[in-house]
Amino acid sequence: MQVEIVTIGDELLLGFTIDTNAAYLARTLAEIGIEIVHRTTVGDDEDRIAAAVRDGIERTGAVITTGGLGPTSDDRTRPAIAKLFGRELVRDDGIVEQIRQRFWRMSSAKMPETNIVQAMVPTGAHVLENRHGTAPSLMLEDEKGRWVIMLPGVPREMRGLTNDTIIPLLRERVGAAPIAIVSRTVRTTGIGESALAERLGDLAKGMDGLPLAFLPGWEGADLRLTSNSLPVDAAVRALDEAAQKLREAVGSFVYGGERDDLAALVLAMCRERSLTIATAESCTGGLLGARVTAIPGSSDVYVGGVVAYDNSVKTKLLGVRDASLSEHGAVSEQVAREMAEGCARALGTRVGMAITGIAGPGGGTAEKPVGTVWIAVAGAGDTRTLGRVYVGDREEIRLRATQASLDQLRRALALL
Amino acid sequence: MQVEIVTIGDELLLGFTIDTNAAYLARTLAEIGIEIVHRTTVGDDEDRIAAAVRDGIERTGAVITTGGLGPTSDDRTRPAIAKLFGRELVRDDGIVEQIRQRFWRMSSAKMPETNIVQAMVPTGAHVLENRHGTAPSLMLEDEKGRWVIMLPGVPREMRGLTNDTIIPLLRERVGAAPIAIVSRTVRTTGIGESALAERLGDLAKGMDGLPLAFLPGWEGADLRLTSNSLPVDAAVRALDEAAQKLREAVGSFVYGGERDDLAALVLAMCRERSLTIATAESCTGGLLGARVTAIPGSSDVYVGGVVAYDNSVKTKLLGVRDASLSEHGAVSEQVAREMAEGCARALGTRVGMAITGIAGPGGGTAEKPVGTVWIAVAGAGDTRTLGRVYVGDREEIRLRATQASLDQLRRALALL
Repeated sequence: MQVEIVTIGDELLLGFTIDTNAAYLARTLAEIGIEIVHRTTVGDDEDRIAAAVRDGIERTGAVITTGGLGPTSDDRTRPAIAKLFGRELVRDDGIVEQIRQRFWRMSSAKMPETNIVQAMVPTGAHVLENRHGTAPSLMLEDEKGRWVIMLPGVPREMRGLTNDTIIPLLRERVGAAPIAIVSRTVRTTGIGESALAERLGDLAKGMDGLPLAFLPGWEGADLRLTSNSLPVDAAVRALDEAAQKLREAVGSFVYGGERDDLAALVLAMCRERSLTIATAESCTGGLLGARVTAIPGSSDVYVGGVVAYDNSVKTKLLGVRDASLSEHGAVSEQVAREMAEGCARALGTRVGMAITGIAGPGGGTAEKPVGTVWIAVAGAGDTRTLGRVYVGDREEIRLRATQASLDQLRRALALL
Repeated sequence: MQVEIVTIGDELLLGFTIDTNAAYLARTLAEIGIEIVHRTTVGDDEDRIAAAVRDGIERTGAVITTGGLGPTSDDRTRPAIAKLFGRELVRDDGIVEQIRQRFWRMSSAKMPETNIVQAMVPTGAHVLENRHGTAPSLMLEDEKGRWVIMLPGVPREMRGLTNDTIIPLLRERVGAAPIAIVSRTVRTTGIGESALAERLGDLAKGMDGLPLAFLPGWEGADLRLTSNSLPVDAAVRALDEAAQKLREAVGSFVYGGERDDLAALVLAMCRERSLTIATAESCTGGLLGARVTAIPGSSDVYVGGVVAYDNSVKTKLLGVRDASLSEHGAVSEQVAREMAEGCARALGTRVGMAITGIAGPGGGTAEKPVGTVWIAVAGAGDTRTLGRVYVGDREEIRLRATQASLDQLRRALALL
């Protein structure tokens, strides 16, 4: 099944808001075999909304809109589409009552009279209850079976409605074994794209009917296999097999799949082994700690850390030797090692992780250019170090350094 | 002038990539008086690209495309639009040479033969040099003066070309004093939307022809004034005057304008006063340090910090008293105070900033629910504290806490 998306709103068109709804809908619908073939964005203008929906209906026969269902005079989706389908807008007292109750439940407040407009329904429309907000979703279908579904624009409401109502409804229409666009991601880190391609050999071209995309980013290179010509069950089987082949070919550079977060995986590994962690950060300034503590429940593994931005903090709080700083410099294997060992000692943890580097844009030299990073992981009487020169801006270099330090720990833990 | 945008790429349509190019173009073009009235996204399909551009040309007479100018067989924008305008694609040896040289300069590599396709130019096209990548931008115009500009899809290249080439080119076409959509933002923090509206009184409705939008986020509430019916110079004057009125009405809750970052502003204030900073973070786990050190040159103000996630770190490294922890709990005014004073002492700085709180989703109690945060700023013999209960998820609570701590320091510095 092919569907078009029309996203509605001046804020979107003017660029004040980034359109994340369209991408979410496309990814979610792809999984049940629906292909998005066209997307349009128009402002809060009745004629333009009607024209965009009409064009989509004529091309594809199936349109999902987001936005313009709110209670204010800017919100023109309902009247625009009712008119396009030649329907009257009629007040639905059941919906009025639902909105009234929702206001009372959420904020002990009376429903403002302006919200009544959200209970206006085109005659013959299918009302899809919104348990995530006030505006119900509406579906209209013409005599040729061509349809439009109107979703609210607030991302939380749009996502909730899509998952609990739209997906089941459309799955029924798509039928039993639709051709689906399904993908599998194998996440790698610590290896460049060309080295990865070399390891993959012929697999780099993808496998029968499953093209492979290389997606590099600061977390590493993701390998994404996509199936777009098989029924969903067969696609999942083929992808799982193919992903397994990729994992075997790439080996220890693979750390996870789909949207796995390396920090969460490493925390779980430490929890399993009853290990505690401390961090010592220079150029990342707390970013590694922030990443680890972004994960709920991290407190049973992560004890804390020292942001040793200035060298005085490295010596005072972490016990880095003055001689190491003067002989090797703050960005060096030796200082990284002493920082990792020092934070584990100072905070009384089994594992210490350290990052020291030059994030730029200033501070680089011929010998140690911007992007130079030293990482150390101390634990179980052993300290492993890693030196890298990263390409990218300040943010990218810092993010890459946190990922590399977590990967060092992952590799060390795999041996335990 | 009205323009349409057509963004091209399977990745965009499938939702693997979020379309940030369209928003960037809309904001940037608005400032020279160009209004984006329609946006379309299509995949890497020659017929669909041609149809989308044709529709735009017919509606508006002016289309900007992004994407599909790369060297691979997926990249169909060039042939699709050449065909639509009835032009041949001819190889331009000057461009071949530019691409060849760029490869050599950037990576001492030979140009792959596949890149030659990027030098194929529709007859009669205006070639706009791309100093940010290999694919030049192309402009085609028909006998009725209707035009299309093709931009690359890589955001860095698209932005570079827009600024150095497209804006000057279109500014000339737009003419002297176009009606422009221009906006001004006044950034506030530490005050709720309704309190803000109360302070603003009648100004909350906006001022003659300058509607006002409230944009709440974790940094605080932004007030955005927009002018969409005046020539650009008059708009700027009217907005500056109106923004000044807003600043006066809101008072000390205003910390900046447009895209000002509070961390950067506070760092500059400290630099001016030769003050140094240390941080002590519990629930934010390093996020404040990471925010401060994201700013290049922060090292002359920011010395470092302690991530005191576990209580043992609060006592050992920051000198928080056991009695304070047991009597008041880790999330309390007293502990925040001792953390702020302790980090300044331990790291030898003039200013100490501390955050302790319950970021959730677990750990809340009836007395101290999730979102409870205590902040302290110590310096010049005085410690200022602030207690708040934030609404939101873990990420939002942590971000709001960093903003509040920076705002406490801003307020303290304003008195010096």
